[in-house]
Amino acid sequence: MAPRRPLSFQEIILRLQEFWAEQGCLIWQPYSEKVGAGTMNPATVLRVLGPEPWRVAYVEPSYRPADGRYAENPNRMQLHHQFQVILKPDPGNPQELYLESLRALGIDFRRHDVRFVEDNWESPALGAWGLGWEVWLDGMEITQFTYFQQAGGLPLDPVAVEITYGLERIALYLQGVPSVWDLDWDGTHTYGEILKTSEVEHCVYNFELADIERLRELFQHYEAEARACIARGLVIPAHDYVLRCSHTFNLLDARGAIGVTERARYFARMRELARQVATLYLQQRERLGYPFLWKAPAPPSPEPMPPLPTVEEAEDLLLEIGTEELPARDLEAALAQLAENAPAMFAEARLEYASMEVHGTPRRLVLYVRRLQPRTRAIETWVKGPPAHVAFDAEGHPTPAALGFARAQGVPVEALTVRELPEGRYVGVIRRAEGQPTPAVLTELLPRLITSLKFEMSMRWNRSGVAFSRPIRWLVALYGREVIPFEFAGVRSGRETRGPRPRGSPVLRLAQAADYFPTMRRARIVLPVAERQARIRKELERLAAEVGGTVPEDPELLAEVANLVETPTVLRGQFDPEALRLPAEVLITVMRKHQRYFPVLGPDGQLLPYFLAVRNGGRRGLEQVRQGNEAVLRARFADAAYFFDHDTRQHLETFLPRLATLTFEERLGSMLDKTRRLEALAPRIGEMLGLDAEEMRLLARAAHLCKADLATQMVIELTELQGVMGREYARRCGEPEGVATAIFEHYLPRFAGDALPQTRPGIALGLADRLDSLVGLFAVGLAPSGSADPYGLRRAAAGLIQILTAHGLRFSLSQGLAAAATVQPVPVTSEILEEVRAFLIGRQRAALQEAGYRYDVIEAILAARGDDPARTAESVASLQRAVERPDWPRLLAAYSRCVRILRKARSEGSEPAPAVDPARFESDAEQALWEAVQAAREQVGPESPVESLVAALERLAPFIDRFFEEVLVMHEAEALRRNRLALLQAIADLADGIADLSRLEGF
Amino acid sequence: MAPRRPLSFQEIILRLQEFWAEQGCLIWQPYSEKVGAGTMNPATVLRVLGPEPWRVAYVEPSYRPADGRYAENPNRMQLHHQFQVILKPDPGNPQELYLESLRALGIDFRRHDVRFVEDNWESPALGAWGLGWEVWLDGMEITQFTYFQQAGGLPLDPVAVEITYGLERIALYLQGVPSVWDLDWDGTHTYGEILKTSEVEHCVYNFELADIERLRELFQHYEAEARACIARGLVIPAHDYVLRCSHTFNLLDARGAIGVTERARYFARMRELARQVATLYLQQRERLGYPFLWKAPAPPSPEPMPPLPTVEEAEDLLLEIGTEELPARDLEAALAQLAENAPAMFAEARLEYASMEVHGTPRRLVLYVRRLQPRTRAIETWVKGPPAHVAFDAEGHPTPAALGFARAQGVPVEALTVRELPEGRYVGVIRRAEGQPTPAVLTELLPRLITSLKFEMSMRWNRSGVAFSRPIRWLVALYGREVIPFEFAGVRSGRETRGPRPRGSPVLRLAQAADYFPTMRRARIVLPVAERQARIRKELERLAAEVGGTVPEDPELLAEVANLVETPTVLRGQFDPEALRLPAEVLITVMRKHQRYFPVLGPDGQLLPYFLAVRNGGRRGLEQVRQGNEAVLRARFADAAYFFDHDTRQHLETFLPRLATLTFEERLGSMLDKTRRLEALAPRIGEMLGLDAEEMRLLARAAHLCKADLATQMVIELTELQGVMGREYARRCGEPEGVATAIFEHYLPRFAGDALPQTRPGIALGLADRLDSLVGLFAVGLAPSGSADPYGLRRAAAGLIQILTAHGLRFSLSQGLAAAATVQPVPVTSEILEEVRAFLIGRQRAALQEAGYRYDVIEAILAARGDDPARTAESVASLQRAVERPDWPRLLAAYSRCVRILRKARSEGSEPAPAVDPARFESDAEQALWEAVQAAREQVGPESPVESLVAALERLAPFIDRFFEEVLVMHEAEALRRNRLALLQAIADLADGIADLSRLEGF
Repeated sequence: MAPRRPLSFQEIILRLQEFWAEQGCLIWQPYSEKVGAGTMNPATVLRVLGPEPWRVAYVEPSYRPADGRYAENPNRMQLHHQFQVILKPDPGNPQELYLESLRALGIDFRRHDVRFVEDNWESPALGAWGLGWEVWLDGMEITQFTYFQQAGGLPLDPVAVEITYGLERIALYLQGVPSVWDLDWDGTHTYGEILKTSEVEHCVYNFELADIERLRELFQHYEAEARACIARGLVIPAHDYVLRCSHTFNLLDARGAIGVTERARYFARMRELARQVATLYLQQRERLGYPFLWKAPAPPSPEPMPPLPTVEEAEDLLLEIGTEELPARDLEAALAQLAENAPAMFAEARLEYASMEVHGTPRRLVLYVRRLQPRTRAIETWVKGPPAHVAFDAEGHPTPAALGFARAQGVPVEALTVRELPEGRYVGVIRRAEGQPTPAVLTELLPRLITSLKFEMSMRWNRSGVAFSRPIRWLVALYGREVIPFEFAGVRSGRETRGPRPRGSPVLRLAQAADYFPTMRRARIVLPVAERQARIRKELERLAAEVGGTVPEDPELLAEVANLVETPTVLRGQFDPEALRLPAEVLITVMRKHQRYFPVLGPDGQLLPYFLAVRNGGRRGLEQVRQGNEAVLRARFADAAYFFDHDTRQHLETFLPRLATLTFEERLGSMLDKTRRLEALAPRIGEMLGLDAEEMRLLARAAHLCKADLATQMVIELTELQGVMGREYARRCGEPEGVATAIFEHYLPRFAGDALPQTRPGIALGLADRLDSLVGLFAVGLAPSGSADPYGLRRAAAGLIQILTAHGLRFSLSQGLAAAATVQPVPVTSEILEEVRAFLIGRQRAALQEAGYRYDVIEAILAARGDDPARTAESVASLQRAVERPDWPRLLAAYSRCVRILRKARSEGSEPAPAVDPARFESDAEQALWEAVQAAREQVGPESPVESLVAALERLAPFIDRFFEEVLVMHEAEALRRNRLALLQAIADLADGIADLSRLEGF
Repeated sequence: MAPRRPLSFQEIILRLQEFWAEQGCLIWQPYSEKVGAGTMNPATVLRVLGPEPWRVAYVEPSYRPADGRYAENPNRMQLHHQFQVILKPDPGNPQELYLESLRALGIDFRRHDVRFVEDNWESPALGAWGLGWEVWLDGMEITQFTYFQQAGGLPLDPVAVEITYGLERIALYLQGVPSVWDLDWDGTHTYGEILKTSEVEHCVYNFELADIERLRELFQHYEAEARACIARGLVIPAHDYVLRCSHTFNLLDARGAIGVTERARYFARMRELARQVATLYLQQRERLGYPFLWKAPAPPSPEPMPPLPTVEEAEDLLLEIGTEELPARDLEAALAQLAENAPAMFAEARLEYASMEVHGTPRRLVLYVRRLQPRTRAIETWVKGPPAHVAFDAEGHPTPAALGFARAQGVPVEALTVRELPEGRYVGVIRRAEGQPTPAVLTELLPRLITSLKFEMSMRWNRSGVAFSRPIRWLVALYGREVIPFEFAGVRSGRETRGPRPRGSPVLRLAQAADYFPTMRRARIVLPVAERQARIRKELERLAAEVGGTVPEDPELLAEVANLVETPTVLRGQFDPEALRLPAEVLITVMRKHQRYFPVLGPDGQLLPYFLAVRNGGRRGLEQVRQGNEAVLRARFADAAYFFDHDTRQHLETFLPRLATLTFEERLGSMLDKTRRLEALAPRIGEMLGLDAEEMRLLARAAHLCKADLATQMVIELTELQGVMGREYARRCGEPEGVATAIFEHYLPRFAGDALPQTRPGIALGLADRLDSLVGLFAVGLAPSGSADPYGLRRAAAGLIQILTAHGLRFSLSQGLAAAATVQPVPVTSEILEEVRAFLIGRQRAALQEAGYRYDVIEAILAARGDDPARTAESVASLQRAVERPDWPRLLAAYSRCVRILRKARSEGSEPAPAVDPARFESDAEQALWEAVQAAREQVGPESPVESLVAALERLAPFIDRFFEEVLVMHEAEALRRNRLALLQAIADLADGIADLSRLEGF
């Protein structure tokens, strides 16, 4: 029931206050300090600590200096208003309560698309984080919904539910106006009339005027007062000063005054203060005896667990784990694990069934087992007794040994049988373990199965102590018509599932497991992931075709959106073609990243002014949902246009100084420091690659500018556009195309399968950037280890190898690394350089293995030519071809015989002579081999292709064979022996610099 | 309709938000800075500026560090919550709207006593002030209601109505709990559970921990940032820093770190910033074109003024000026002026009537005129024409001159008459000016009459530009049955008056003027002030007698309370006898000052545990009103007990250092500086007064301690208890009784009719204190002028004279002033000293005149003995007795003859000889006179009482008379002449130092 007149801004607040007061929330007031979010109000960040229950709701005007846009943006401001709700402990149905609050604002979910889209939250300065979602309403983020896990560095127990409404966003939605400045505040004034002037003023102050030196001193004073308060045990006065520190830091940041090292130090200082305040607060509450604990209603005494049902025949089993919206990748992971763990655990338990299937949506994980037998499989085992000849006498009568054994086993002696065993004939007895009733097994197995699901990040939400991707809210466990009773994470299993969100998640009661799929179908919930994907893909194609377009393949996005909905419906929206003045990459990135929309391309690949969005739910109200999404995209594009226009008002070069405020790595300095290093390093790499003078000029300029776009608003907002925007902006300010291209290319390849840099300046810059990162980060101890690779060094290394090999560029890794070492601000030892080199070689090894080359071939080449990846790649290919020749074993045998006898001789103390002396030859075979060797030496050197070596070996092989047939190498006369060894050494040396053939199989 | 369950704290807020939103208020949020009051939120202090309309309502948590009581007080905290409402312009019925809001909270006015008690508001730091009231609910202050007149040093036009609810107070009332800490916040938590810990923490921080040096630096940084913002034209960022300055100043103040000079400078700095911010804001709004102006509904076009009525017979006239509650003393002043101005203006307009009466209550000023004639009195004037002899010829026929005159006057020539005038006989004509219709006169006179009322402080409230004591809300002007139409201050006169507040001020329509008194009687409104007073007095006596007590006479309080109500009803309340452990002066002062209660004394003068309060309204709900008042007094006494206990925890002496933070006068330093001066000055005054050694010891100690109580909580709270508490606290910490008494006495007399100091140390200290103030303040240019006497120097001077004269103490003003001059921190010239002396003498002159002495007698004595007030007083009395003797003219004549001939001789160049030479006598008369003079000289000297001089004159007179009969003074022989003059000089000199008899009448 939408209200006749849209609610004004203040009416929204009043309704929310009323709603949450009715839910038992204390209504609190905005804080008397400038805070960045309602979370920082002590009513949240402190009250969430400790065991006491707490429910509170309040408005919080939130100041974020860096978000200011001089009021030029339709919904981005340095001041916005949050409505903050804390529910601690988890009431069990916080999402439902939240949705009811939206209904109280007049939002009808059947006509709108409400979505919980994964979004986690972290404040390094406050030592706080939580997991949860953004809530989307027809595509617009209106709320942050978080299970608050830690504050002030202390884990929360119980966890608190934090609901943060973006009041302006909700008002924009309800009022249907294009910009916050047009919002109706009170029926008389617009939001802009009340706040626009001060918004602009704050921006001027925050970005242009605030005195940096004074702010630094203020920070110090605040910190000192905070410390004094902490020392005296004063929680709130200390917290107030922490908030002032935080706001002052934010101002400094907005002024661009925070360098790299400083930033980390400021964070550490604030985090430490926050930790101490949190600790003090907890101590205080403990001293007071946690008084609010006694305000919580006593938990109802749990109902006794029902008895296990009796099932006599094979029946279907349904396990449905009902959850709050799982992140897409967690859903994927859970399904994979279910599919792997369930059969294994069923098998281990000897549960027998006809078939098993696994499905999932964001709100349910489903295991369906068909015709599960009512008992586990019985098993027979044979218990070995005494040897047959001991058990029975010659007459075949049982001896006392047999009688004793039978008695011990509780069977008549007649039941003993004899088996032939490897160690002889023995008596024994067959023992049969009967099957267990399946319900008894399941009652223990099913919770274990849920426990077996692991996630990249998991959370707690109630006092059960269970951690899962997101809270589990219901469990269906039906075996035929019977419930398999168990409890998990505080939830009892039962027969009630829930319908889809758009219908208010109605409870659906299942009479039996077999009703499940029809029930879901009736509810229009599409359980199989593949079916959802297929449906979406089909709709995408159809809707794109209607406007003469196509949708580029994007399996990643498809997989994600399919896992964000239960009932996918695709809709096509439009946007103002005027937006097409922005680079297509920008528009596509905005659509894809912020909104999970698919773009539509025209016949010639150009972007069309449409988007395709996937809603959860059917076609009811689709028009409204479309309009909502269009409005959101309009704002998003306006934001992008703001960034773009803002960025293009100045030359790209002018962004360079702000790079000083962007951390590369604390000890390695800012992105500006990195730029300086690239300016020094890139020309040396360019020389190594033999760039010409013009290319060198382009390279130098590109090195200067390549990181500048990181300081542009667009890239700050959409990091994935780094390089893309650099190219765009460089072009727009008249840089040579070669420079623009190099800026873009130096990031290539950005992911597996991405394009590679094509111009030599781009290549050189890309190599320099990667070499700098690798050497620097290894030097400060940030080499990747295990799954930790925060700087993406594996990708950097692989990219470097890929570039060199794809272009077949001769390049010495050691020289490149040594050059990179000279520009680092930290010491780089030769051990470090060797480590990096080994790391790079390791990446190439992996790449070659993946390409299908024989590992021994790879090793043979890497040992000789690993320093030059391109040559390594060619050589591996060549050697692989060689080893696949039918005559290869003969060639290798001839060569290896030479090498092996040399090894043996050395081990016995015989060194080859320094040079071959033909005068000491005693046979033709020696003479002939020597001549062949001399001929081979002329055709093969360390730089030769593998093919030359193979050809030489082919020619030499008969001479080698003859030599060994006719000549005794290890002659007792030393001079003869050493001369012959020298001859073999010359053969062995032929492979030097080409391959270490001794690493090949069959050597 | 009181709600079944009392509203929780948060429900009160929600209801108020809803109520004011319905009244078209924008609902705003608390500010993001620590403020002392909702006024400082830009939504008030800036939005009230300029011509634009503005209605807003919001909660404001208000921080006032110095008000902290470590949560030991039931309703005094460093943090309290205001609910702030701004209505701009005045909606015409703001009090009614406010009262409706209370009704919305469930308060039934018929059962409760709601009062608007004068209370004005000023913030020197913000350059802001307003006039208005505290609103009392059954005696408890629950709201500040102000017509905001100025902000940032700029006058408000239009004026804004500011309503500031004390939310805790209202909640205390509604919930009926004894302390804010027990308030129910949300149905689950108490206010104390939410805020008590942080309240204590803030107190510890504010009073004990905040780092003074850091705070000073913070202030400077804030000020510098504010200035920078102002220079850049940024209003809100600048204002934020002004607020930080203000809060930082408050912290410094709570820490006792602000000295005298500093305080003034801090104020000046903040005021200047506030002024600049206000100016900038106004400029900004002007540049924007005052956009909110267009949101105001267009004012209804005024109805045309009705035509003047026609009245044919004498009728009663009623003028009732209906106002919002007038301050008691403004009501008094208005009645006095009405009583004076109305008859004068009626007379001037020749309005004739039988009688006139004037009445008034806080809500109405009434002029009632009985039998006012329907027309003004007609007058005849005789217009003079030509001389009779010109106008008529000898035969008595009119000449052309007469004809011309008659024609010019428009009368037949027969109408000319002749009159005898001093200048001769003239013709002329009687012209009759007919009376004006009374309505026409009144329509112009009545508004002029209202305009003629002037007040000590008056206010504007709407765009009419009219200033009055408080807003005028209705006007009744009935002449018989007819309305005399006029408009004043935007209000049209009519026939509708209003009933009493407790009944919701119902509109009462009057058919005719004569219905007024019966109507008022029916409404139980007691119009005559004297009747209200008499009724109260009678009730006071009765209710006191019921508990065996009496009420001490207190005409001032009686006059005040009688002027605070329309329907006085006295009620007796009780308080816990335990409170009687506090000094009675404290309890009485609290009752009288804070609550306007009368105390009840027992037969032996001791205070009884009762109080008598006067409510507005009848006996309905009296029990509830009593309980409310009892609860308020309980809190007040608890507050006093807190102060008392806090103060007595330490020795009085320990308060001395804090005197450094109390300003005496900027250039003269703090009260501590004054104390140091008194320590130096008092002993010298003591010596002048001849104190003995023991007295001097007491005096020195008392001088040291006499101002210490100014720094105690009790005196800070109740300034009128200065001295009283000093005595009490001195006793309690074991100071000698003489010291305690002197501390108390040094303030005596505090007002006309007050007791005088009786002990000599008390006297000496009182004199020293006054001399110090007089000399110091005159020296810095703060002598009283006109009505300005901010330091009460007139009272100080009068008190000083009174003390000296009452005790007949010999004392030289010049010496005392000279001694005071030596201790001043500023230069004191002899001119200044002479000015002060003249000022003191002037005060004594006034006192003596008031005592009924002849002015010439006073002058005669002051000229001779003015430096010693006690002797002056005695001498004036003596001389007055002398001049009243029947033979006095003869005595004075004899003496004056001597003096006058001396003056004449001197004017002719004859000086008396230096000494009388009896050898030059030529007659017995000379010889006899000389002998008589010599005898007189032995009995009379400069120190002699006036009586001796008179006796001497009596004896000398016959000799003088004979001398002049027989001796020619102005003999042509110079030697003889000069010798005779010398003889007369000796007589003249007899009065030296006693009186200047030449100033007497008849001299």
